[in-house]
Amino acid sequence: MDKVTLAAAFARITEHWRPRVVAELNGQEVKLAKFRGEFVWHHHADADELFLVVRGACRVEFRDRAVALGPGELLVVPRGVEHRTVADEECEVLIFEPAGTRNTGDVDHPTFTAPTGARL
Amino acid sequence: MDKVTLAAAFARITEHWRPRVVAELNGQEVKLAKFRGEFVWHHHADADELFLVVRGACRVEFRDRAVALGPGELLVVPRGVEHRTVADEECEVLIFEPAGTRNTGDVDHPTFTAPTGARL
Repeated sequence: MDKVTLAAAFARITEHWRPRVVAELNGQEVKLAKFRGEFVWHHHADADELFLVVRGACRVEFRDRAVALGPGELLVVPRGVEHRTVADEECEVLIFEPAGTRNTGDVDHPTFTAPTGARL
Repeated sequence: MDKVTLAAAFARITEHWRPRVVAELNGQEVKLAKFRGEFVWHHHADADELFLVVRGACRVEFRDRAVALGPGELLVVPRGVEHRTVADEECEVLIFEPAGTRNTGDVDHPTFTAPTGARL
C-alpha cells in the first residue's frame, strides 16, 4: 500500500516500448511505458486496453482512422481491434489491462515484444 | 472508441462524492469523482480500488495511517481494508475498480452512497 508518483516512476524508465508494472488490482495491471516512434500493428484477442497519456502526445492508429491523445486524455481499445501506437516525440503513457497481457498481442516481434509482468 | 479528455469530463461534474463512469474495460470501470470534505469509513469486500489524483490533493486514511496524494499520484487500496478519503479542498480523482462497485462499500449511507454505473 505504497503510493506511486508517476513523474518519479517515469524518470526511472529509460527504454521505449517496454511496459513496467507499477500496480496490480483485481487481476489487472497498471503499467507505465514511454513511447517513441511507431509500434507494430497488433491486437489483443482477450483484452481491452486503456491508454492514458501523462506527458507528451501520441496517437492510436487503427486501420481506418487515428485518435490523437495529449496529456490527460485516455482511450480504450476494445479486444480484437487491430491498432498501433505512434509518437513523433517521446510520450509517457499509463496502461490499464489484464495482468499478463503481452504488449504486442498476437504478434511475436523481435524488437517490440517485451516481457510480461516486469515490475518497475 | 472515443477518447476521454479528463479536464473536460471533470468540468461536467458538479457534485462531490458521486463517481461517474467514463470508460469500461475487462469488467472494470474508470470513474471520475470530485472529493471535498471527509467521506465515510468503509471497505470493499471483493474489490481492490485504485485512486489517481488528477488535480488538487487528498489523503486516503486508514485506521492506523494516512497516505497523502497529489496530482499524478496513485494508490491501490486492497479489498477488505477499511479506509476513507478526505480532501481539505476540492480534488479531482480517477478511480479504477470492478464494474458495479459501490462507492461506500459495506456501508449504506444516506448521503454518501451513490448509484453504481452512473455514466457521465
